[in-house]
Amino acid sequence: MAAELFARWAARTEASLERLLPDPAAAPERLHAAMRHATLGGGKRMRPLLVYAAGTALGASEELLDAPAAAVELVHAYSLVHDDLPAMDDDDLRRGRPTVHVAFDEATAILAGDALQTLAFSVLAEAAASDTLRIGWVRELAAAAGAAGMCGGQALAIDATGQVQPLPQLERMHALKTGALIRAAVRMGALAGGADAATLARLDGFAAALGLAFQVRDDLLDIEASSEALGKTAGKDVAQAKSTYPALLGVDGARACLRQLAADMDAALAPLGTRAAALAALGTLAVTRNH
Amino acid sequence: MAAELFARWAARTEASLERLLPDPAAAPERLHAAMRHATLGGGKRMRPLLVYAAGTALGASEELLDAPAAAVELVHAYSLVHDDLPAMDDDDLRRGRPTVHVAFDEATAILAGDALQTLAFSVLAEAAASDTLRIGWVRELAAAAGAAGMCGGQALAIDATGQVQPLPQLERMHALKTGALIRAAVRMGALAGGADAATLARLDGFAAALGLAFQVRDDLLDIEASSEALGKTAGKDVAQAKSTYPALLGVDGARACLRQLAADMDAALAPLGTRAAALAALGTLAVTRNH
Repeated sequence: MAAELFARWAARTEASLERLLPDPAAAPERLHAAMRHATLGGGKRMRPLLVYAAGTALGASEELLDAPAAAVELVHAYSLVHDDLPAMDDDDLRRGRPTVHVAFDEATAILAGDALQTLAFSVLAEAAASDTLRIGWVRELAAAAGAAGMCGGQALAIDATGQVQPLPQLERMHALKTGALIRAAVRMGALAGGADAATLARLDGFAAALGLAFQVRDDLLDIEASSEALGKTAGKDVAQAKSTYPALLGVDGARACLRQLAADMDAALAPLGTRAAALAALGTLAVTRNH
Repeated sequence: MAAELFARWAARTEASLERLLPDPAAAPERLHAAMRHATLGGGKRMRPLLVYAAGTALGASEELLDAPAAAVELVHAYSLVHDDLPAMDDDDLRRGRPTVHVAFDEATAILAGDALQTLAFSVLAEAAASDTLRIGWVRELAAAAGAAGMCGGQALAIDATGQVQPLPQLERMHALKTGALIRAAVRMGALAGGADAATLARLDGFAAALGLAFQVRDDLLDIEASSEALGKTAGKDVAQAKSTYPALLGVDGARACLRQLAADMDAALAPLGTRAAALAALGTLAVTRNH
């Protein structure tokens, strides 16, 4: 059962993060508490699950995957803290709880995000793995998180605020803003499993479709779901006049797009056979999730 | 002549950064421009100089040291961008120019800082060096920059705002806020030179004294110098009732402290003989600088 496997991997991630985050009783306590608030006790852990699913598909042990799974989640968590800041998306609610700058203060939120990013690279550098694998992980994560990846995508999103973006521009923005880190999660797992270039390329195709599907589903949920179900403020896209897939394609068009992406994911994974069952289940989850 | 050597190393750093920073003509242009504004065309480049001085003292080539020198400066630059934000120190002026959030906007400054930190780790991961050396550099830089280093020190500084800190607490704060990255610069250079444990320990002692001297001198300059000479707003420490060495020790006491730290640096470097001439000159510079 995929659901049981995912629950176990999510629990492994939670345990790793709990162990890796700084002691809340040690100074500076407020910074440490904010880092823990941002990271623990919530989230779908989609990116860690992708690390475990890709890695175990290629024969890597769960133990070897703990470090890249935690690292990619730490980068994701840091990005949410900074994206939620008043100068950015100005969100008060995240995963059903106050955002870090609301629960603490802006300065602490900026610093906590900064320190979470650093911790991600520290976790990879300190992992029990070969030097070659560790430096490969650092390379993947840094390429995905920086100006040519997640940060660049967020900057493109800001540049486009209040403008209607054409579809290619919207896809490019999401490919960087959320796609790059999803792709890195899959690739870091695959590297741990010793993937050859052909397998990496195939998994890249899967990850690209999954990243896009995740975003299209997110846009649909913002229209369809309540804030309570989402654990964050619903309807913000429409309120902020953001370009979204439903806005550009219509709700039916966005749903058709999701179906096509699901087919693309299946096709990319087909050559891997049953080993890719967990990855395929994560693809389905991205397309069908309700929060 | 140390001055000529330092000018050459600073020029190498500028050239590396120019090459490593993203193209200002490529999208997202505003993010790229902000990253370049934050990093290029100014600064004392103290941390890169320490990388070159420590590394070449132990026989490393300048080429091998280019990556860690650039990486440590990128982390320093990112920290300044975030420290200057309105929610943090709220500074308008840095190196005689408008700070990033003034020249651009707050969201761009947050993202530019984030992307500069990522770039630092990317530069190390992509460096032309052995896997072992690269992962060693990543470990040093991450340990120095995170919650147990620079970010933690900044959090301690915020926690202490408006309070008089006793001397040990002030020293602990500065050891993390500025000392950790200075120590990492020396250690990353020394690692490139293949330093043994005893040499690393000796250089640690030098770096700790230099980091502290740098801060004591900074505090004295805030009292003595004009904003024009500093290239940043002078007199802010007194205006903000910050705990400083002159406030705790008196101006004469702070000067005596600087003399003691200079003696400590000389003692730490003595066993290295003439190979440490550039490091010694940097120590002198930290104690005597006028901006």
